[in-house]
Amino acid sequence: MAQLSAGDELKGRRALITGGLGFIGSNLARRLVADGVEVTLVDSLVPEYGGNMFNIAGIEDRVIVNISDIRDRYSLAHLVRGKDLLFNLAGQTSHMDAMADPYTDLEINCRAQLSILETCREVNPEIKTIFASTRQLYGQPQYLPVDECHPLRPVDVNAINKLAGEQYHILYHNIYGIRTTVFRLTNTYGPRMRIKDSRQAFLGIWIRCVTEGIPFEVWGGDQLRDLTYVDDVVEAMVLAATSDSADGQIFNLGGEGSIDLRSLADLLVDLSGSGKYEVREYPRERIAIDIGDYYADFSLAESTLGWTPKIPLAEGLMRTLNFYREHLPHYI
Amino acid sequence: MAQLSAGDELKGRRALITGGLGFIGSNLARRLVADGVEVTLVDSLVPEYGGNMFNIAGIEDRVIVNISDIRDRYSLAHLVRGKDLLFNLAGQTSHMDAMADPYTDLEINCRAQLSILETCREVNPEIKTIFASTRQLYGQPQYLPVDECHPLRPVDVNAINKLAGEQYHILYHNIYGIRTTVFRLTNTYGPRMRIKDSRQAFLGIWIRCVTEGIPFEVWGGDQLRDLTYVDDVVEAMVLAATSDSADGQIFNLGGEGSIDLRSLADLLVDLSGSGKYEVREYPRERIAIDIGDYYADFSLAESTLGWTPKIPLAEGLMRTLNFYREHLPHYI
Repeated sequence: MAQLSAGDELKGRRALITGGLGFIGSNLARRLVADGVEVTLVDSLVPEYGGNMFNIAGIEDRVIVNISDIRDRYSLAHLVRGKDLLFNLAGQTSHMDAMADPYTDLEINCRAQLSILETCREVNPEIKTIFASTRQLYGQPQYLPVDECHPLRPVDVNAINKLAGEQYHILYHNIYGIRTTVFRLTNTYGPRMRIKDSRQAFLGIWIRCVTEGIPFEVWGGDQLRDLTYVDDVVEAMVLAATSDSADGQIFNLGGEGSIDLRSLADLLVDLSGSGKYEVREYPRERIAIDIGDYYADFSLAESTLGWTPKIPLAEGLMRTLNFYREHLPHYI
Repeated sequence: MAQLSAGDELKGRRALITGGLGFIGSNLARRLVADGVEVTLVDSLVPEYGGNMFNIAGIEDRVIVNISDIRDRYSLAHLVRGKDLLFNLAGQTSHMDAMADPYTDLEINCRAQLSILETCREVNPEIKTIFASTRQLYGQPQYLPVDECHPLRPVDVNAINKLAGEQYHILYHNIYGIRTTVFRLTNTYGPRMRIKDSRQAFLGIWIRCVTEGIPFEVWGGDQLRDLTYVDDVVEAMVLAATSDSADGQIFNLGGEGSIDLRSLADLLVDLSGSGKYEVREYPRERIAIDIGDYYADFSLAESTLGWTPKIPLAEGLMRTLNFYREHLPHYI
């Protein structure tokens, strides 16, 4: 008899994914649809963010799409009702945009999160919620690898607001018994990531440049990073959705080891069979919010959820390159 | 020749105090006026908060009073212009009110703080800012006394929002060079504190009851607390205002040692020469947001600013009781 996967337990459940047309949300939607989950996606399609109708190509008839903004609490109240699971992934993720317009970042990453949790409390306190947070909360690491006990020293407005959003989730678990799990994501990559510009992730624009055959820029180059392939992030979220021991917990996700940016650039060029890059000094306006080296200790996710990253970096990058070679026009 | 006090350096400077008609704000205003500072007070006079025109009785002709709300960024932009010092004390301080209406708490303690800092950056980046934060950010202490490195585990919405407000202050120092200092206050007490109900501080309602000759309630009774007399808090803020080494720093304030609530109640009854209390079980709706024992390690303020609490507890309580015996009708 085949072993049941975590996803089998979810068959027939009803899930809402905020940011559902975005990078992680749409990959999660594909996985959940395959597992027999009734999936509703909510997305604002704000042009600078990651929502893209093409991200659900092939599953568009098997999901419900609701275009609205998580800042609109009335639409959320309607959508949250009757769901078993809430994957709360919508967010403003650009650190530079957050510094330029801190109020919008606050409204999305802080106030809307409070509003979503109040909505759960009012209309559906039984719902199970998975929240996507960020390693950016830790600021510049004081030790490596960084575990969940590391001090929280946000170095930009985005991280301060994300921290508040995360803390609301844990608080609503502790006070009101809402079942919430928080993941602090590191650099997540894979098909359907936003590659239009460097707004959200350096790797996106690298992949675009390599695919288009133009040189890309590596800023600095010595910084260590860890990367998680999107399917591994999705697996962690599915595991949390089916685990009571994840309730009220915060988990780091990470990758297999760490890599400096120059080596990562070399690997990408190697895998693509073409492409080149230039190393540039770190831009002045970004130095103040840079965090230096980072890689995560994800042993808590390992011991509690049985999660480890499964997809090796070279394989994940190859899959990603192949995806954009085929679908580039939908992402630029 | 008499030694110069910290306040002497401030003579002729222009200071803005948000929450200036409140408890700490008005005591600070009195001190600054005595030191020859040109003082402007901004206060919303929201009835449930601490603002009270009687708090400036005797100095009303020596300060400028501007009734407006820190959520109103246009009035703030006008008021911040041309000032040397900003004592940023306005806040929603009731933990229970924050749970009942988390949005208002967010608007005041989080969004308005961001707005004040953006205003400083735009119209007066040279201003020196002192922010009143709270020991509530630490949550339930993991060790005692609690120093500034203690993990931050807010147990209510108010603390989450105050933490964001505090972090914006440190961030605007680190990124934009705005001179900001944060004080994490513990239980501050003294003349002009709000005593109308138990909304903000247990000691306020105790003092009201003792003064009115009716029994007060002690919830629990074994919890350890430290208390700072308001003049000591004011002194710390004046020291920070005159010290470059305070820029970008976070300091705990505290008291001489700690005291359990039952002993504090006994001391209050002793000092007043009358009054009695009943020990009650901790109310159920407050248990979830209670922090247990707390007292601060304030050695960083001691070594950096030369600050220690000067007013012994018995003397501070006596002064406070005397004040309310004389002025009770203005505070109930």
